[in-house]
Amino acid sequence: MTGDAFKALVAEQVLILDGATGTELSKRGMPAGVCPELWVLEHPEAIRGVQSDYAAAGSRCVYAPTFGGNRCKLAEFGREKDVVAINRDLARLSRAAAPGCLIFGDMAPTGQFIEPVGDLAFEDAVAIYREQAEGLLAGGVDGFAIETMMDIQETRAAVLAVRELCDLPIMVTMTFEKGQRTLTGNDPVSALITLQALGVSAFGCNCSMGPEGMLDIIRLLKPYARVPLIAKPNAGLPQWQDGRTVFSMGAAAFGVFGPEFVAAGAGILGGCCGTTPEHIRSLANGLAGLRPPQIGAAHGACVSHARGYREVSRQAPFAVIGERINPTGKKALQAELREGKFDLVSRYADEQIAAGAALLDVNFGLSGIDELAMMREGVAMLARDYAAPLCVDTTRADVAEAALRCYPGRALFNSISAEKDRLEKVLPVAAKYGAMLVLLPITDEGIPATLAERIAVIKRIFAEAKKYGYSKDDVCVDGLVMTVSASPDAAELTLGLVEWCAREWGVNCVCGLSNVSFGLPRRDLINRAFLGMAIGRGLNMAIANPMLVDIMETVAAGDVLCGRDVRMQGFLGRYGNSDGGGVATSAAAAGSAAALTPEDAV
Amino acid sequence: MTGDAFKALVAEQVLILDGATGTELSKRGMPAGVCPELWVLEHPEAIRGVQSDYAAAGSRCVYAPTFGGNRCKLAEFGREKDVVAINRDLARLSRAAAPGCLIFGDMAPTGQFIEPVGDLAFEDAVAIYREQAEGLLAGGVDGFAIETMMDIQETRAAVLAVRELCDLPIMVTMTFEKGQRTLTGNDPVSALITLQALGVSAFGCNCSMGPEGMLDIIRLLKPYARVPLIAKPNAGLPQWQDGRTVFSMGAAAFGVFGPEFVAAGAGILGGCCGTTPEHIRSLANGLAGLRPPQIGAAHGACVSHARGYREVSRQAPFAVIGERINPTGKKALQAELREGKFDLVSRYADEQIAAGAALLDVNFGLSGIDELAMMREGVAMLARDYAAPLCVDTTRADVAEAALRCYPGRALFNSISAEKDRLEKVLPVAAKYGAMLVLLPITDEGIPATLAERIAVIKRIFAEAKKYGYSKDDVCVDGLVMTVSASPDAAELTLGLVEWCAREWGVNCVCGLSNVSFGLPRRDLINRAFLGMAIGRGLNMAIANPMLVDIMETVAAGDVLCGRDVRMQGFLGRYGNSDGGGVATSAAAAGSAAALTPEDAV
Ligand SMILES: [Zn+2]
Ligand SMILES: [Zn+2]
Ligand SMILES: [Zn+2]
Repeated sequence: MTGDAFKALVAEQVLILDGATGTELSKRGMPAGVCPELWVLEHPEAIRGVQSDYAAAGSRCVYAPTFGGNRCKLAEFGREKDVVAINRDLARLSRAAAPGCLIFGDMAPTGQFIEPVGDLAFEDAVAIYREQAEGLLAGGVDGFAIETMMDIQETRAAVLAVRELCDLPIMVTMTFEKGQRTLTGNDPVSALITLQALGVSAFGCNCSMGPEGMLDIIRLLKPYARVPLIAKPNAGLPQWQDGRTVFSMGAAAFGVFGPEFVAAGAGILGGCCGTTPEHIRSLANGLAGLRPPQIGAAHGACVSHARGYREVSRQAPFAVIGERINPTGKKALQAELREGKFDLVSRYADEQIAAGAALLDVNFGLSGIDELAMMREGVAMLARDYAAPLCVDTTRADVAEAALRCYPGRALFNSISAEKDRLEKVLPVAAKYGAMLVLLPITDEGIPATLAERIAVIKRIFAEAKKYGYSKDDVCVDGLVMTVSASPDAAELTLGLVEWCAREWGVNCVCGLSNVSFGLPRRDLINRAFLGMAIGRGLNMAIANPMLVDIMETVAAGDVLCGRDVRMQGFLGRYGNSDGGGVATSAAAAGSAAALTPEDAV
Repeated sequence: MTGDAFKALVAEQVLILDGATGTELSKRGMPAGVCPELWVLEHPEAIRGVQSDYAAAGSRCVYAPTFGGNRCKLAEFGREKDVVAINRDLARLSRAAAPGCLIFGDMAPTGQFIEPVGDLAFEDAVAIYREQAEGLLAGGVDGFAIETMMDIQETRAAVLAVRELCDLPIMVTMTFEKGQRTLTGNDPVSALITLQALGVSAFGCNCSMGPEGMLDIIRLLKPYARVPLIAKPNAGLPQWQDGRTVFSMGAAAFGVFGPEFVAAGAGILGGCCGTTPEHIRSLANGLAGLRPPQIGAAHGACVSHARGYREVSRQAPFAVIGERINPTGKKALQAELREGKFDLVSRYADEQIAAGAALLDVNFGLSGIDELAMMREGVAMLARDYAAPLCVDTTRADVAEAALRCYPGRALFNSISAEKDRLEKVLPVAAKYGAMLVLLPITDEGIPATLAERIAVIKRIFAEAKKYGYSKDDVCVDGLVMTVSASPDAAELTLGLVEWCAREWGVNCVCGLSNVSFGLPRRDLINRAFLGMAIGRGLNMAIANPMLVDIMETVAAGDVLCGRDVRMQGFLGRYGNSDGGGVATSAAAAGSAAALTPEDAV
């Protein structure tokens, strides 16, 4: 099954998954403590019974019994050498058991923690899942269900493993604890943003909570979802009874939640622990005749990190991308990087986030250092220690891949120009990881002189990006700020492009501010005024130094004036304790000789 | 002859005036020391000879011999009671002498100085010229030549006197000394701006200099002229010879200048002291077949005061109208005005001009004071003591008239709304004095809610103004700034109007800034950002407090970014001695904790 066929299917019907497999196998004689994968291979009639019951109850998609079929888990039973064969054979058993159903290969946690939380290297995790996926593919699965995931990096490893093997649809469900975080601290929305950018076909949650708690998560995800949402809850909350955990929600009560899940935004439903074919039948009955919910994010595109996200759209507050983690022109930072130290990088990250940067640009392009190694290490450090999405800034495809592969979120990528190398080598890498793109109107011939030419170049770059699935939401155009002292119409040329983006084309626009004032005195004044003018024309992002107070002041005020600061909470939060006296301070600070009387202060 | 007929005539041909009258009369026996007007009445054959000679030489317009025919001059000869009869009879003599020519009534200085330079009250001067003009009208003149004027207020008095009697064309020529100022300090361009706004049909210079020096003045005037320019030079520079002043430039040499004047921009030519019918013949011969120069100011509309002017257009630098001379909300100023004192008004004028205000708004609307008397006195004081054009700000027609009548320049008038009273009573007054207008999109029903409605109201006001001869150049639209804390789209509504003015309609747009931030903390930030945004959308004027440093900084930077600051001379002049350190200063001043390293400062 292709991703597109899956998409068409779930657009047309609420897709009903199966329920619990383990407890059903126990009912059919599987003893506690055995390896379920091996026991099933030895008792094919058991899985045939379970899955044909689910198919009869209404499941349209059942998971192959390969939950623990990865090398780490099988090693506990000395069978780490047989991963491919075991998964292949189990997939075939499911196919035979439920011939009318889609069979999705089940992949689940390895039981180990990945860097930086644990010791397992990211690439080792990818290899582990690749091996399992190869077996499942050999068994003829229709797609993959990566479930019960508790860590975004392990999930990304599993998704990448599948993606690097085939184009089959991938459903991902993660398990959120109370507090709506996974065990390693990932939140549902950030995970959704990261994974849908990485190309999963559906996302949601399974296990850990009953339908009620899971409804809340689905409601949380809905406004950000660009793929169908999955809910595979347990049969209520677990209870300790007679020395074992039981799930006591009956089939009828469980089925009542079906329409509620659809109303909340989920289009793929099933059951996890404690659910039975009866639960699935009740669910299916309740859903009869219901259309799947519409997909279509209410919010604009977002970037994310492991523990948070940021909307980057023309409706969202203005996004300042902190520009300081970049050795160009910074001698102290250059010296540190040459020594392989990241102290200043850390300090710049701290300071910029504290000053209000929405993202951090990360650029390690400097002669005499290993840009690739530095980028990999720097991104890993920043992703681990700082709660801000990153903007990966490089001209090299290999550096881009190193950064985006290890980054546990959806990054912004700066930038894709119309230069041959960028379109042919860098764009495919950025696209593979689903990064948002900065489109830079530059060609191999240089910078186009006119607005019309710049627009044409942007359209050409976007046409290429579109081939990889990019929509307008997923890009921002670099306004290409030139130096006004070199050409008096330099600013208007940029502002014209900004306006075209905002009004004609409807895309994000970003500017690097400081070029505009090159060669002039009081560059702060020129930069600040230019920012105001550009905001007036529709700019919604800037690559700037957030340590410059008047830049951040202009951004905060601009959001109020553009109506992007809902109930002005941002502005009031920042400046609510100051009053008109701030004016006098500003004036005095800038050297005014005037003593303003209070009534004149504004 | 109507003003329009005159306009058509001078559009079609270079209009040739007469030459000197006094010296020609002397040649025909007029003794030194007599009253020329009375002597001519007694020797009609003399003027008949002079003027028929000029007509034969090529003059198409001759001046009635009434140069000294005002009450002040005639009083020197005891004939102040006969002004009307003398002027009437002299005009009739000219008509008979040169039947094919236009006869323009000649009015010239009273010989007294008007307030504030001298003691003669402005209204007395108007009365003196009115009396003379009544006589000339009775004599059937085709128009008026107000010549050899040395003071803008005396000139305005003469023009207003004629305008209040009839619609005949008025030509004004002033006499500029070396240094290109009149005796009382008026410069040619400011006088042109003031008088063409007041409705004169042509403007230029006569006497005092030979053709060469006068060419420079015509070149100076040309880019600002919306009416034909007049050059009536002497026959070269005066020389002292044998106990008397002689003008030694011969007719042939004089005639050579004709085409040069036309090339420089003058379309109405004649001669002053020392010129003869031979000079006029030579001039006429040289001009044969030449078309008059095109009228059409290269510069946009200007406002003026007695000794200077300021272009107010979208090409010119941004104009900040200093808002502080306005008692609203200023307790100290209110108290002073109630006592009839102007100390704070003077101080506000000083400070605002020093801070870079292009115009000063003057508003004396305050309950408990005599707004009319205060306005008349305040405007007179400000016009006398300060070198800045004024923006007269009142809602009352009588106050507007008092201010504009005594103001020795072209003022901006704030404002004309679509309210019935403003259109019917205030607009005619502003139009009479040719003030530039602020158009305010408000009706008797209040403030229109939508952009489309505001635009419709502006168009309606402009349609009324057009009936009085206003062009788009002569108005600026008030962007009507509303409070963003009351409505999140308030700023965009104003910005939409700003942009419509700048791009669609092609007119000046002005905003009062401070309303936008009402009710918020750090209003300076909101005001400054709003200003930047509005500049980006096309704003070219603001009513603001120029003492607020960041407003003026934003304006200066905005001019650089809009390409309105030619070679950045304004910005470099203001900030050229500062450097990047200014940034650190701003940041530190505003409370940033960051110590920026030098290489990061911009
Ligand atoms: Zn479960
Ligand atoms: Zn625009
Ligand atoms: Zn003269």
